[in-house]
Amino acid sequence: MREFDLIRRLQEIICIADAPHAKGCTLGIGDDAAVFDPPAGRQIVACTDSLVESVHFHADTSAASIGHKALAVNLSDLAAMGAEPAWFLLSLSLPHTKQDWLESFARGMADLARESGILLAGGDVTSGPLNVCVTALGLVEPGQAIRRSGARPGDSVVVSGRPGAAAHALQVLEAGGVPDARDRSALEFPQPRLRLGRSLQGMATACIDISDGLLADLGHILEASGAGAELDVQSLPCPESMASLPRRERWPLQLAGGDDYELCFTVPAAAKRRLEAVSASSGAELTVIGSITAEPGLVVRDPDGGRLEAPTTGWEHFRETGGAAP
Amino acid sequence: MREFDLIRRLQEIICIADAPHAKGCTLGIGDDAAVFDPPAGRQIVACTDSLVESVHFHADTSAASIGHKALAVNLSDLAAMGAEPAWFLLSLSLPHTKQDWLESFARGMADLARESGILLAGGDVTSGPLNVCVTALGLVEPGQAIRRSGARPGDSVVVSGRPGAAAHALQVLEAGGVPDARDRSALEFPQPRLRLGRSLQGMATACIDISDGLLADLGHILEASGAGAELDVQSLPCPESMASLPRRERWPLQLAGGDDYELCFTVPAAAKRRLEAVSASSGAELTVIGSITAEPGLVVRDPDGGRLEAPTTGWEHFRETGGAAP
Repeated sequence: MREFDLIRRLQEIICIADAPHAKGCTLGIGDDAAVFDPPAGRQIVACTDSLVESVHFHADTSAASIGHKALAVNLSDLAAMGAEPAWFLLSLSLPHTKQDWLESFARGMADLARESGILLAGGDVTSGPLNVCVTALGLVEPGQAIRRSGARPGDSVVVSGRPGAAAHALQVLEAGGVPDARDRSALEFPQPRLRLGRSLQGMATACIDISDGLLADLGHILEASGAGAELDVQSLPCPESMASLPRRERWPLQLAGGDDYELCFTVPAAAKRRLEAVSASSGAELTVIGSITAEPGLVVRDPDGGRLEAPTTGWEHFRETGGAAP
Repeated sequence: MREFDLIRRLQEIICIADAPHAKGCTLGIGDDAAVFDPPAGRQIVACTDSLVESVHFHADTSAASIGHKALAVNLSDLAAMGAEPAWFLLSLSLPHTKQDWLESFARGMADLARESGILLAGGDVTSGPLNVCVTALGLVEPGQAIRRSGARPGDSVVVSGRPGAAAHALQVLEAGGVPDARDRSALEFPQPRLRLGRSLQGMATACIDISDGLLADLGHILEASGAGAELDVQSLPCPESMASLPRRERWPLQLAGGDDYELCFTVPAAAKRRLEAVSASSGAELTVIGSITAEPGLVVRDPDGGRLEAPTTGWEHFRETGGAAP
């Protein structure tokens, strides 16, 4: 398949012409750049994230999952800001042009684009090691984007869904086993919490997605907010597949396992009673797992009220290498 | 260097706090996404392009060149639309975290960001094969973006600078030689024609950058405009270093060599007399090299008035591979 045919085919499959903000894209694929007419009185929310083979997914991951997930991780960032998806750009580096693979990849991305109402507006395809870079643009009412920096002492810490499922699936896969179907779906077809994010506008004081692991990402909220938190590890909702795991195996996966595209957010005590309604309208299970403290630091209480020694605090791409060495 | 230190260092170097549209970035690096307040009555122009090692540059290319060029190729797309640069996002896949390399890379990118007045507003760093994906956002007055589709029969075809220099440098490098310094600079530190692009608003009927080669990219204008063109190959301005090359070596490099970040555009006959003023104000040498014809097709006239057999029509990442094979 030639480059221009390939681009045309990706466009045919992924580009959802009746997306809500399709009209706001006054010039789409096929020129040097796309042109957008942002609705009056809205701010633009923009994020970019790449998926790289052997780093973010194994070589045998399905093309549909890669297409889905490359878009999902960006939509999850929009969700964490409370933004509404509008348009996205795709920069794709491909080691081959196998048509079956490309069609599946495109369909995986298109299905999520359709569900989320986001329009592919441009991009770039090159040869090279497999790398899928998506840039997503969303819209938000002025001043309404939910930042990481607004958590205040006394706020409740809330998490959506049941963290740990994706990390559990990965652990089982890496041990050569067959993961639980729901865990595997959490790993390969994560559902960005877009409706939840929108519902949290004006309610959450801070929000983040927990793609790097719950503790690491909550840590970012604490750092940005200049606060601390105390979590009750027993309150963490447990994926069904993990219920029989010993606590000392389960908790590290739930606290530090990455790749969950759930949201962790903080709400003032007064807003706590609204959580049930938000849960019902957004379809997301919501659980209070702790509270924000004035004293900096992140304390995880075990069932006896003691301090749990926190497991590694999330996934970094580059560990300490001691200076200039590679 | 750890991931968060690395991101902080990149931010310190690349993020130009006094960029013209810095105030329009109400939330920059350090949250799940950036937030922009586009100026009232402006459209957003967005493009994304990745540079991949061994595809877009050799492994021994300087880090400063890679940093510069990854931003330049995107700014060149904004230039071709007539847009003013505002903000950009960087998604970086790195095989190592060598501090010297990273500092040079960042400085190469920062120097061009400063000159162009564009603000780094967010991004993502991961481990993986070297891949630099930039997404640039620019601004344009409503309806003023210069498309590829407006060329009309009788329009003059104009090119900026002296195409072929980058391809010539690459050819010399690949033969183990030492390229002319200006050619090498065209290859490694291309200067996007931003001032020229802005000057062409309301004047050019179509515009494109010639990164894939002059004939291929002019071909995109012709396809989008439903027109043809006739070029006079002798009118092509020749880089000094190539003046002594035999024509049959020089013309293919000038017509089909990629990686020139010059603009090719069309102007109505009446606007031709304004080219000198635009050239003076934008600092770009401008040369009329042919004209748009009603009859489709791209004809290149040789000095005798005959048809030159066109060389390969530009650089594609994926040549015909015959179906589903890799």
